[in-house]
Amino acid sequence: MGATVKTLSVDKDRLLQRLVSLGELGAIEGTTGCARLALTDEDKAGRDLVLTWMTDLGLKIEIDGIGNVVATMPHDSQSPPVMTGSHIDTVATGGQYDGTLGVLAGLEVIESVITAGVELRRPLAVGWFTDEEGARFAPDMLGSLVYVGGLAVEDALLIEDSNGITVGSELDRIGYSGPAPIPGRRPHAYVELHIEQGPILEDEGITIGVVEGVQGISWTEVKLTGQSCHAGTTPMRLRRDPGVVASLVNVFVRELATRFGNSQVATCGVVTHVPNLVNVIPSEVTMTVDLRNTDENLLRRAEAEFLEFLRSAAQAENVTVSSRQLARFEPVEFDHRVIEIVERQALLANLSSRRMPSGAGHDAQMFARICPTGMVFVPSVNGISHNVNEFTHPDDIEAGANVLLQTMLELAETDFS
Amino acid sequence: MGATVKTLSVDKDRLLQRLVSLGELGAIEGTTGCARLALTDEDKAGRDLVLTWMTDLGLKIEIDGIGNVVATMPHDSQSPPVMTGSHIDTVATGGQYDGTLGVLAGLEVIESVITAGVELRRPLAVGWFTDEEGARFAPDMLGSLVYVGGLAVEDALLIEDSNGITVGSELDRIGYSGPAPIPGRRPHAYVELHIEQGPILEDEGITIGVVEGVQGISWTEVKLTGQSCHAGTTPMRLRRDPGVVASLVNVFVRELATRFGNSQVATCGVVTHVPNLVNVIPSEVTMTVDLRNTDENLLRRAEAEFLEFLRSAAQAENVTVSSRQLARFEPVEFDHRVIEIVERQALLANLSSRRMPSGAGHDAQMFARICPTGMVFVPSVNGISHNVNEFTHPDDIEAGANVLLQTMLELAETDFS
Repeated sequence: MGATVKTLSVDKDRLLQRLVSLGELGAIEGTTGCARLALTDEDKAGRDLVLTWMTDLGLKIEIDGIGNVVATMPHDSQSPPVMTGSHIDTVATGGQYDGTLGVLAGLEVIESVITAGVELRRPLAVGWFTDEEGARFAPDMLGSLVYVGGLAVEDALLIEDSNGITVGSELDRIGYSGPAPIPGRRPHAYVELHIEQGPILEDEGITIGVVEGVQGISWTEVKLTGQSCHAGTTPMRLRRDPGVVASLVNVFVRELATRFGNSQVATCGVVTHVPNLVNVIPSEVTMTVDLRNTDENLLRRAEAEFLEFLRSAAQAENVTVSSRQLARFEPVEFDHRVIEIVERQALLANLSSRRMPSGAGHDAQMFARICPTGMVFVPSVNGISHNVNEFTHPDDIEAGANVLLQTMLELAETDFS
Repeated sequence: MGATVKTLSVDKDRLLQRLVSLGELGAIEGTTGCARLALTDEDKAGRDLVLTWMTDLGLKIEIDGIGNVVATMPHDSQSPPVMTGSHIDTVATGGQYDGTLGVLAGLEVIESVITAGVELRRPLAVGWFTDEEGARFAPDMLGSLVYVGGLAVEDALLIEDSNGITVGSELDRIGYSGPAPIPGRRPHAYVELHIEQGPILEDEGITIGVVEGVQGISWTEVKLTGQSCHAGTTPMRLRRDPGVVASLVNVFVRELATRFGNSQVATCGVVTHVPNLVNVIPSEVTMTVDLRNTDENLLRRAEAEFLEFLRSAAQAENVTVSSRQLARFEPVEFDHRVIEIVERQALLANLSSRRMPSGAGHDAQMFARICPTGMVFVPSVNGISHNVNEFTHPDDIEAGANVLLQTMLELAETDFS
């Protein structure tokens, strides 16, 4: 690598302009937000636009049977690429940065290298992966899961949305089912730029998050059944109120997360009372408990404590419990060599950085199953994401894209033993 | 009063048959429950049926501008009647007895007197009062509140349901806005038969509850607004989770009711999370707190403690609070002379009885503002009410209706000084 490579940088304005252009597809009126649920017409419009940009750069385009799109440079290379990527689908009330930043910054990295005429030891690739959000089809990270061989494509194509429409029929409808092999090619390495989606970087005034791994995730749905009675006439001692049990659980898991500290988080996002009337003790409450930790042993201990508390609180109130696991992913640790390169490149660029886990799931965690993998985070203003007010400052976008660029360049020259 | 009057009794089968017939309107499939929310098509069907029965008996029908219906016998009497009544609207998951028993037993009393050809010193009347439940339009006991002059009818007609539909437009739509004067005629006395809706009579093996008064009721709706964020990426210390505050409040008011003891009850019937998704910290939670006590001073203390706790819990979580009072009724004491008549009539019928407060609000408490008033309770199996499984044994229904009958007959002959 010569001096040319070390001073290479992305074109900030071009990257920002592409983010705006893609954000206009599926735009939510009156906001800067987007709704491009996976495999909808809006998603197709977004795919078509990014595909045009990739094609205009002369990249080799490969589309597989789950609709993942990977573009490689140089066109004729057969050796494993340094890959980057993310997703362009959004949640129903999404922003302009979640996922799209990683795809468009990857494209920007490749265009910068092409423009500079730099020759690299290994090819570069940028991809986007179908239905990362899982907001339309569960599970989330569907495309990258299939890419790495974690789920058979035949099974993935049969997954239905809430209206009974399958992944397969929608892929055919929008014309994004291609012949590329599944599982996909194993990259030399994978690194992904993403907005943090949390408040830590902004809170600490840091520009670059060096992501060490992804938290383990445990989602439990709990159904509590008590006795619906009149709120005025039922003495306290005779009550079987599932709402009180749900409240005790919410307070308990909050206390547990605070007590465990470090990366432990706990959230009761869903609480649904039936019949949900002011003067009726609820008969049934459905709630979800979302527990996450970077340490699998601690996550298991959190799950065990929560379930034991749930059992005893329900018993004390004479409320019956049924529960089922909605999702369970063990924590993922990224490759220490990729982590060190990201960290070094932030330092070389005079950018403040800190190591941190990812609280959210990302396509990168799937690639960690098959190749050395890492991630770069940039700050989210007010920590807001999955929300039309999602925003990341242009300077932070530029900084993150340049760290991605230099990390990919260094990975292209690095041999992993 | 001759021997004829003292041996008069209701026709149990006719009463039970009418309860079943009315229960078929708005029936909840696969259950014995009913959904006849105030001023809906189902409520109109129920009204039409009962009105037919009243008309067939030749009673004088009067409908006022809030949709209350009062039927008086004899038709031509101008003097203040001994009135009974209740309501035929239900909660969304109601049973066949709550309210309807009081109306249909009242009708049965009048039919029994007509059939026996007994002449009384004073007329008898039976009424039903609009939106007693308050399940569609707050406050509850709306119709009787307007009847006794506690709320201007003009204001009542503007009250909206959760879809913004007004009482006035619904009354016009179902054709139940009439010309009877508001406030309504002051009865000579008012006595109401109702299911207990609680477990005390059954628990103690007693048939007749002699109701001494009604607990004070305080309903507060609380809206808590925090910050919707990603459940995985937002550290615990930076959270503003209104769901946690709602849970702390639920646990606190449960503890408060237990600590206060005696008649104090506390219920959080409504808890609604927005957006109610497993991996999103809620942005907003709406909850209701229902506090009741027979002692006004203690009820005020309970309200003050609850509001102070709410304020400090919300502040600690940096969640904003707005609250509004949905209903507030001071405890009501019934007339000792009516109480004594009910108690004596139970004793004369060889029925076990006990004096007790009502935990629920009833139309009778509104009439207590304008005339000597009392109530008769019969047992609820398992204390269940506001629930499709609400049930009262036919023998208890007959016993209660006969106590109502004899109480009304005695009141018709009684002068209050």
